[in-house]
Amino acid sequence: MVKVLINGYGSIGKRVADAVAMQKDMEVLGVTKTKPDFEARLAVEKGYKLYAAIPERKPLFEEKGIEIEGTIFDVIEEADIVVDCTPGGVGKDNLKMYKEYKVKAILQGGEKAQYVEDNFNALWSYDRCYGKDYIRVVSCNTTGLCRILYAINSVTDIVKVRAVLVRRGADPNDVKKGPINGIVPNPPTLPSHHGPDVVSVIPELEGKIFTSAVVVPTTLMHMHIIMVETTGTTRDNIIESIEKTPRIITVSAEEGLNSTAAIIEFARDLGRMRYDLNEIAVWEESINVVDNEVFLMQAIHQESDVIPENIDCIRSMLEMVDDKMKSIEMTNKAMGLLK
Amino acid sequence: MVKVLINGYGSIGKRVADAVAMQKDMEVLGVTKTKPDFEARLAVEKGYKLYAAIPERKPLFEEKGIEIEGTIFDVIEEADIVVDCTPGGVGKDNLKMYKEYKVKAILQGGEKAQYVEDNFNALWSYDRCYGKDYIRVVSCNTTGLCRILYAINSVTDIVKVRAVLVRRGADPNDVKKGPINGIVPNPPTLPSHHGPDVVSVIPELEGKIFTSAVVVPTTLMHMHIIMVETTGTTRDNIIESIEKTPRIITVSAEEGLNSTAAIIEFARDLGRMRYDLNEIAVWEESINVVDNEVFLMQAIHQESDVIPENIDCIRSMLEMVDDKMKSIEMTNKAMGLLK
Repeated sequence: MVKVLINGYGSIGKRVADAVAMQKDMEVLGVTKTKPDFEARLAVEKGYKLYAAIPERKPLFEEKGIEIEGTIFDVIEEADIVVDCTPGGVGKDNLKMYKEYKVKAILQGGEKAQYVEDNFNALWSYDRCYGKDYIRVVSCNTTGLCRILYAINSVTDIVKVRAVLVRRGADPNDVKKGPINGIVPNPPTLPSHHGPDVVSVIPELEGKIFTSAVVVPTTLMHMHIIMVETTGTTRDNIIESIEKTPRIITVSAEEGLNSTAAIIEFARDLGRMRYDLNEIAVWEESINVVDNEVFLMQAIHQESDVIPENIDCIRSMLEMVDDKMKSIEMTNKAMGLLK
Repeated sequence: MVKVLINGYGSIGKRVADAVAMQKDMEVLGVTKTKPDFEARLAVEKGYKLYAAIPERKPLFEEKGIEIEGTIFDVIEEADIVVDCTPGGVGKDNLKMYKEYKVKAILQGGEKAQYVEDNFNALWSYDRCYGKDYIRVVSCNTTGLCRILYAINSVTDIVKVRAVLVRRGADPNDVKKGPINGIVPNPPTLPSHHGPDVVSVIPELEGKIFTSAVVVPTTLMHMHIIMVETTGTTRDNIIESIEKTPRIITVSAEEGLNSTAAIIEFARDLGRMRYDLNEIAVWEESINVVDNEVFLMQAIHQESDVIPENIDCIRSMLEMVDDKMKSIEMTNKAMGLLK
């Protein structure tokens, strides 16, 4: 059993912990928190061993009556790997500690590509990351783009990608961010950084992907409008390829799944923990091919699509399973994904 | 003085009435309402002659103490032209009445192109609509697309247009519509109907424009992400052309105009009635040309960008001014537009 330490039990960290706990070949060594909030309390109630991410803050947990095992430095040497789920920018600073303690580490998409050896998406770069020490699992948006481009690339050659990202303004529990009413070009410069982020996973798309992004007042999901010029394909080929690609499902507006809100209702009705939809949802009606260009719209659950990727990344970096599709299947089965 | 009857004093109608009243060569003959609400009361307080759009409802206005001159049938024969600002679909039904009374009429973008002789945008089809009897001023989104494509087409040849429309969910005073939280692919099929609507104004774009649209929880403005393949141009050429094109302004995110909310704040600070921004706002930072493809983002004030178009449409249909640029200039000056 591989021992996984989750550094930062927040939005991503708590999900990674739960996903690790579901796997047969890995276990949660412990989780860390910087403050004794409700998430820390629930972590302990769930049975995770809790450590203070910042040593001086350990007494704060004790004062609040939250059972704490020690600090991150009491446990880091036992870890086979650390999944760093700290807020964007902190992961980069933590790298020094991971290197000092000679422990492998996964950073999240909030960090820059330049600080790691490579960038992970299970479909595209599992093999490249195999056995590596410091890897970044790319962001929710980049993960969504990589998955759909894998499906398209499986049946045709990609000539040019144009993608518009309509991003959620804040996560559901985040009451400090906006917009509440308005649309924000973010960034206002074109192209956005999302294209280069995809290239960090799929280098062959260099110079072939152009992205732009706006932020809108919603908390549920991101949405992508995707236009991919290809050397030639058909709508049926694309649908068939999407059906074969793991972690992408098709949904039908006609069946009532006509917004991101309806898709989240679907996840709730599936009984998904925290209403997570780890799969990308592509609107079936939106899929069209005109003049060899594939058009489609997809929805991305920003809090959860990267979670199974983190699990596969652990297996790749620790050389636990050498076939990416086998790891994907193990992860999906353990987590109860649709595909 | 040309006599203009405004049928439907709602969101568009009240703005058209005010814009007509500002012109030196036309006057408001009267405005109609179906019900005695605050808009009807304010119309009378402003000095517009009010008529019941539905004859049987005339007593309702009297009961509420709102001064009413009569019904639409008491005034329609005096009109040189009717601007139909009724809700989408009603204008089509009203055409029968306009034809019976042999009065020219302008329909709005909520109606279908097939019911009219031609489709109006001042820059593109002023000459085509000259002297015609039944014309549609295209929707706010189509108007915005037509303006920016005019600017681009002025300096290069358009090969292909791809546009993603991020639409406001409801107008500011509309509390019955959504979404409140979620993104709605609308339509979920690709392409959307906006491309063909542009073609109704610019027939040479047939087969060359592909649009898609989502609706998001905001009331302020629509936003367009525009990608135009051309035979060749530069960023400077595009900026220069936008500067020369009437009713498009550039805004700078760096200067603080970094969202549709900030742009509306700008309109409020300009002292604009109802915070209307009749001009399209293009983000300066967003303008880019890569491989002869123009990329940019623009914001559309859905309640007001078509208003000056209605004024020019009146002049074209009544053969009042034969040079489109002269009419545009007259309208802009009278309304106090930036350009």
